[in-house]
Amino acid sequence: MEEEAMEDISLKELAKKLDEFAKARDWQNYHTPRNLLLAMVGEVGEVSEIFQWKGEVEKGLANWEESEKEHLGEELSDVLLYLIRLADICGIDLPHAATKKLLKNAIKYPPNPFSS
Amino acid sequence: MEEEAMEDISLKELAKKLDEFAKARDWQNYHTPRNLLLAMVGEVGEVSEIFQWKGEVEKGLANWEESEKEHLGEELSDVLLYLIRLADICGIDLPHAATKKLLKNAIKYPPNPFSS
Amino acid sequence: MEEEAMEDISLKELAKKLDEFAKARDWQNYHTPRNLLLAMVGEVGEVSEIFQWKGEVEKGLANWEESEKEHLGEELSDVLLYLIRLADICGIDLPHAATKKLLKNAIKYPPNPFSS
Amino acid sequence: MEEEAMEDISLKELAKKLDEFAKARDWQNYHTPRNLLLAMVGEVGEVSEIFQWKGEVEKGLANWEESEKEHLGEELSDVLLYLIRLADICGIDLPHAATKKLLKNAIKYPPNPFSS
Repeated sequence: MEEEAMEDISLKELAKKLDEFAKARDWQNYHTPRNLLLAMVGEVGEVSEIFQWKGEVEKGLANWEESEKEHLGEELSDVLLYLIRLADICGIDLPHAATKKLLKNAIKYPPNPFSS
Repeated sequence: MEEEAMEDISLKELAKKLDEFAKARDWQNYHTPRNLLLAMVGEVGEVSEIFQWKGEVEKGLANWEESEKEHLGEELSDVLLYLIRLADICGIDLPHAATKKLLKNAIKYPPNPFSS
Repeated sequence: MEEEAMEDISLKELAKKLDEFAKARDWQNYHTPRNLLLAMVGEVGEVSEIFQWKGEVEKGLANWEESEKEHLGEELSDVLLYLIRLADICGIDLPHAATKKLLKNAIKYPPNPFSS
Repeated sequence: MEEEAMEDISLKELAKKLDEFAKARDWQNYHTPRNLLLAMVGEVGEVSEIFQWKGEVEKGLANWEESEKEHLGEELSDVLLYLIRLADICGIDLPHAATKKLLKNAIKYPPNPFSS
């Protein structure tokens, strides 16, 4: 059922969905690298606005209203969707780049041998 | 083989890898919501620096040096990794939220019936 | 006349006005460094949203509606006001730092001797 | 003495200095609205990096190293200089817009009559 939110999804599947979405709406001309980058910056701003007057926030967002968590989920999703679209439009293979970066970080920051 | 970059990966798998990564390095205390948000803003800044003096950029980044594309892939990955980690630490189910947002957008912006 | 917008104003005067403004509203507790930083990031996002779907934009914003220019002026002002307040709350002397940075840049980037 | 940092400076004076600076280096072609906006986003990212792993930070930056405060002053200055240049290139009168916004805020948020 395409009409329900999914439990998990891959980066490639998301990129494909976004491409079909843009094509079905004739949005390709708007989806240039710098347009998408600025759209992503705008969404990062929206996430920041949610956190701006809160002082330090606990993990798990204890004491947040359900509607506020819902709102945060939407804004984080917007950042994600523009980010994946930006990478795709730039011809960057994001799953490859991200898993490569993880391996690079694992070498750069060796694990703590005494970590529990 | 865990030592190679992957062709595709899901949001949940990435969140799990990042959690293991942080635990193995005793980084949990640093991974608070606002710390991760500011780290993400920092990486968005790095992406912007790559694009800042270029004027409008063509899709596919024609004429970019391979090293510059590589650099962009790394910075986009950094945004992605902090974003996924931020959502996870906040207790936000990002795959669910993102696919739900796509459905919401599909209703908000109906497809062009005459689109090719 | 305090009730009119001014033709020019200094960084120190703006910092003073913002401090009086916050005190008169009992906002000091909200004005912590990271709260103000996130508020500034939020406003930078608003500026980005104004530019996001426009492709390259000409100097002077030819062809922009007057209301859109007005909106941009407000959002740029919001960035400025949070920036000045952030510096003040951090105990950073922004006029000193900014004019020092200009001198540093003048040495780092010597003028073009053949510039018209 | 132009060679020393100043105790205070106005927005118009800064805009004028930045214009002369760009002209003397033939940088006008680079100073388009979206280039300057992305450069500002990059500098906001640098400010965020300074704050990212610190958790909540006290007013006045107690316990920060002098070199770190110096670094913060430079990055805040970079945001300011790109912001003023962006406004100028867009033909936005920033001193007018900012003082107008202050008046608007004063009406939108009336002072607390019981504030000390």
